[in-house]
Amino acid sequence: MYSALKRILVGRPLSTREEQHERLTKRVALAIFSADAIASTAFASQEILVVLVPVAGMAALGYLVPISLVVVALLVIVVASYIQTLYAYPSGGGSYVVSRENLGRNASLVAGSALMVDYTLTVSVSIAAATAAITSAVEPLRDHRVALGLGLITLLTLANLRGVRESGRLFAPPTYTYIAVMSLLVLYGLYRTTIGDLGPLPVDHKALESFTGADAALGGVTLYLLMRAFSSGAIALALSGIEAISNGIQVFRKPVSRNAAITLVFTGLILGGLFFGIALLAQQLRPRLSPDQTIPSLMGRAVFGDGPLYGLLQAATAAILVLSANTAYAGFPRLTSMIAADGFLPRQLANRGDRLVYSNGILALAIAAGGLFAAFGGKTSSLVPLFAVGLFLSFTLSQAGMVLHHWRLREPRWRVGLAINTLGALATSVVTVVVVVSKFTEGAWVPVAVIPLLVLLFLGIHRHYARVARLLRLEPGATLPAVRHTVAVLVSPDLNRGVVGALAYAKSLNPEHLYALSITFDEEQEQRLRARWDELGFEVPLEIIGSPYREITGPVIQWIDDLDARWDYDVVTVVVPEVVVHRWWEHLLHNQSALWLKARLLFRRNVVVTSVPTHLD
Amino acid sequence: MYSALKRILVGRPLSTREEQHERLTKRVALAIFSADAIASTAFASQEILVVLVPVAGMAALGYLVPISLVVVALLVIVVASYIQTLYAYPSGGGSYVVSRENLGRNASLVAGSALMVDYTLTVSVSIAAATAAITSAVEPLRDHRVALGLGLITLLTLANLRGVRESGRLFAPPTYTYIAVMSLLVLYGLYRTTIGDLGPLPVDHKALESFTGADAALGGVTLYLLMRAFSSGAIALALSGIEAISNGIQVFRKPVSRNAAITLVFTGLILGGLFFGIALLAQQLRPRLSPDQTIPSLMGRAVFGDGPLYGLLQAATAAILVLSANTAYAGFPRLTSMIAADGFLPRQLANRGDRLVYSNGILALAIAAGGLFAAFGGKTSSLVPLFAVGLFLSFTLSQAGMVLHHWRLREPRWRVGLAINTLGALATSVVTVVVVVSKFTEGAWVPVAVIPLLVLLFLGIHRHYARVARLLRLEPGATLPAVRHTVAVLVSPDLNRGVVGALAYAKSLNPEHLYALSITFDEEQEQRLRARWDELGFEVPLEIIGSPYREITGPVIQWIDDLDARWDYDVVTVVVPEVVVHRWWEHLLHNQSALWLKARLLFRRNVVVTSVPTHLD
Repeated sequence: MYSALKRILVGRPLSTREEQHERLTKRVALAIFSADAIASTAFASQEILVVLVPVAGMAALGYLVPISLVVVALLVIVVASYIQTLYAYPSGGGSYVVSRENLGRNASLVAGSALMVDYTLTVSVSIAAATAAITSAVEPLRDHRVALGLGLITLLTLANLRGVRESGRLFAPPTYTYIAVMSLLVLYGLYRTTIGDLGPLPVDHKALESFTGADAALGGVTLYLLMRAFSSGAIALALSGIEAISNGIQVFRKPVSRNAAITLVFTGLILGGLFFGIALLAQQLRPRLSPDQTIPSLMGRAVFGDGPLYGLLQAATAAILVLSANTAYAGFPRLTSMIAADGFLPRQLANRGDRLVYSNGILALAIAAGGLFAAFGGKTSSLVPLFAVGLFLSFTLSQAGMVLHHWRLREPRWRVGLAINTLGALATSVVTVVVVVSKFTEGAWVPVAVIPLLVLLFLGIHRHYARVARLLRLEPGATLPAVRHTVAVLVSPDLNRGVVGALAYAKSLNPEHLYALSITFDEEQEQRLRARWDELGFEVPLEIIGSPYREITGPVIQWIDDLDARWDYDVVTVVVPEVVVHRWWEHLLHNQSALWLKARLLFRRNVVVTSVPTHLD
Repeated sequence: MYSALKRILVGRPLSTREEQHERLTKRVALAIFSADAIASTAFASQEILVVLVPVAGMAALGYLVPISLVVVALLVIVVASYIQTLYAYPSGGGSYVVSRENLGRNASLVAGSALMVDYTLTVSVSIAAATAAITSAVEPLRDHRVALGLGLITLLTLANLRGVRESGRLFAPPTYTYIAVMSLLVLYGLYRTTIGDLGPLPVDHKALESFTGADAALGGVTLYLLMRAFSSGAIALALSGIEAISNGIQVFRKPVSRNAAITLVFTGLILGGLFFGIALLAQQLRPRLSPDQTIPSLMGRAVFGDGPLYGLLQAATAAILVLSANTAYAGFPRLTSMIAADGFLPRQLANRGDRLVYSNGILALAIAAGGLFAAFGGKTSSLVPLFAVGLFLSFTLSQAGMVLHHWRLREPRWRVGLAINTLGALATSVVTVVVVVSKFTEGAWVPVAVIPLLVLLFLGIHRHYARVARLLRLEPGATLPAVRHTVAVLVSPDLNRGVVGALAYAKSLNPEHLYALSITFDEEQEQRLRARWDELGFEVPLEIIGSPYREITGPVIQWIDDLDARWDYDVVTVVVPEVVVHRWWEHLLHNQSALWLKARLLFRRNVVVTSVPTHLD
């Protein structure tokens, strides 16, 4: 039943040999990896204004375009830097790998934990923004944000468990729809304002007050305030798609570096264009922050009217934001599988499921992101401040690693690469500091606390695996020692047919000593058992242990301890006869004491546990 | 850790031999078994009025005393009938046993399921009334009824898991306190009204309206209405303590029948006296129904004032109601253990835990009653209509059984017994019909539906156990067949030290054929494994199965199927090397695939599974 359900939800198993076919065309890869970046245009402006409006009021809109210019400049630097990485590491060059190769183990673990935090937040923030886009258009859903978001996360998880190519196929159309409709909004909106057909939107004072406070004294815009607006975290989301491309370079078709670089440049162009265009349009339309509607929704209603185009805008926005969350679904499991393969995370995360995806990593991400989303009530603005630290920290490490890479290898044109990556490292490290300082009390302290804890966890796990590997090492020239063993057959005091099979089997094992062993709860039971045993005449000595506390496992272990004292034997084989029923509800009618007993015995040294089943049908 | 916690909560284990000491004195037994009956005085009058007031208004109070007289008469009949049972069945004579001995299997199953429903409802109703007594006095708790009630159920469950004698010791004082304070309330209240010191209470019209409806047309009191008031279910609770005594007769000191009968008579006297006294006092004081306070609470405030005596009344009321729930905790596990011992319920319910109590039955009751309590929002009036059907049905079956018992055995004075039990059977069967008819739509349909379903469940379980017993029967003269077996050692493709222990052990088993078996996911892994295996030179043939879908269990089963075709062997022993780590968190870092594999192999015929552990410390 379980496996039938799994086949319906997840699809038929895929063979390891089918892997090559899962590589992506540029068109599909752009949809998957750039959606993250492009989708951030749906709420980046909004998050900048959330910081500025309470202090600067309506004057805040004037700062939107300059701040957007800085973001676009940063974008150019990061894209240029990452193109270096794509060519240097054609088989996968996320921060984790680049730091590991150039900066050593500890730096790579910091990058890895920073990225894990970051991917998790990408899902939470994108889903929060997607629900905001939906509830902007569909009022009745406003009271069900959390349920709506968790539903979206569940759908995403199932889609990703099915496998990466199908995810791309599922999600490519919305990305291109979003790019088209959003471009139309910007161009048609600017056209209408230019010809004077559309002016600033009317002010909804009531909605505005919920952000500024009814009688807030509006102060001046300081540098510190601009820094906070800049690092509102939305930009981090805009840039996280770039990390995803270099981490996931393996899924591109050959030549991978070239295809990935082209995808990256296209992503940067679309993102920069839309981001700047929306800022320009907002400067003209002067939309006001509202707790119920997003800024693109307000502008969309104004430019397109309340018709089908507006509906398409909101639908495409929601869809691309879900796809943005999907970037993390592509990146997180791939990252954790690499960390796990290096022995810093549980090995289960390195195994691919039968659909060729890292199923455990997908599930871990779904649980972490869903929990975070629900814990913050599904609100974009609460989640955004947690966001930027991890990403810019990993950017910085990656760029610093590339600087060392160029310096050491001195490949052709290495001086250009060195200059670009040095600029990238400087820029992203400055941003990291700005973000930590300006957003610390609003949530940036969370990643600052979590990232070192994750690193400690990595190191603890690694110590464990190293110890196990050392203890389990098999030296060449190992020989098989001769084993002598004592066999004890556990016998139920009511002596059923299972005992025949178990005893017959035990006799075939060539034991040094053979016992039947039974636990009884009172003397009457013991005498009855003894009499029947003698009558059966199996010629196997029966040892009976009285258990006044009606316990089974303890007395059996005790008996084995006593046996240890009797002879200098090697191993005790405990044969457990098990009645096996074949319908699920029948299991409820039988004691599961055999299971407990077997688990306990496994922890006793020099004990081997053997189950001899008696099948009932 | 689990067992340390268990010892703290539940206490040290008790040996089977300590059982005799758990028998109860009459004084303690009265507290345990009669509390149920006596506690019903705390809300019986209230529940009668809840039916009458909406129709008859204030005139309803006039019917309280006559109805109470009928209840007392019924009580006398049932007590007299049950004294017959106590002498006839000194080793335990609940309805289940009496019906089984005299009326046959099916009747006993009906009685058993009726009682199971009834005990569950006893807990829910008593706890609901206890929370009502507490919230009558302590206003701030009124919003936390359900949490309060579930807390009480948890405490009761723990107390009962500790064992029966300690429960009695814990609960005896409140019973006697309740009897004393309630008697004082009745006597002092009647004294004050007689000397004219206290008159009818002022009418709180607003509270009354919430029961009658603001403009309800008050109609006449019909016979049907009186029947409904009579069968409001509170009387059923009053009587259920009687069943508990005859079911639990084994815990009395010798001579058991005499001691149990004396306890029963005392219970009847106290119950009848208090019930009638409260009705008389209510007729004088004319308290009005209120959604916030119970009637005894209103009368207590009027007679005692708002001082410490009132506080003691409410505390003792809550305590005795909890103790009333405790009656079911004594009765339910004992009943289900009998039904399970007869093979009609899962066998686990027949096993006593290490504190000599039927722990599984106690836990089952706690879950069922807690669920019911929460589902009905902890409201007494909603639960009461479900209540009476089961009890009076089992009474009727028990009395009918006694009639046949007298007729067949003709022991001394059998005619008297026959007359009493015939009267009892007639009276309780009439009450059963009255209750089902008058309360059907208000909730009596629930037990009417559940009781037959439980009987069907009993029969299904019995069929299963009978089949298993038949299949497992061990005939005298059974011989042990000679077993030849093939041994397959599962080998991890990374070849660690565990394989040495497993192979050495496998060689000692005297197999006909010995294989090492490994599952690889790709060809590179396979070649590497083959090379290392040849280098190690264990001289055991290695079979390698490629698993393109990265699955383990399926290919192993497939290989065993192929083996089946190769030779006409008896058994395949699959040796599974297991790495055993000894700290709980380390288990999270290792695949649990061995566990899954072992579970699946257990269901394959002719397969024996052997775990050879490699311990890591």
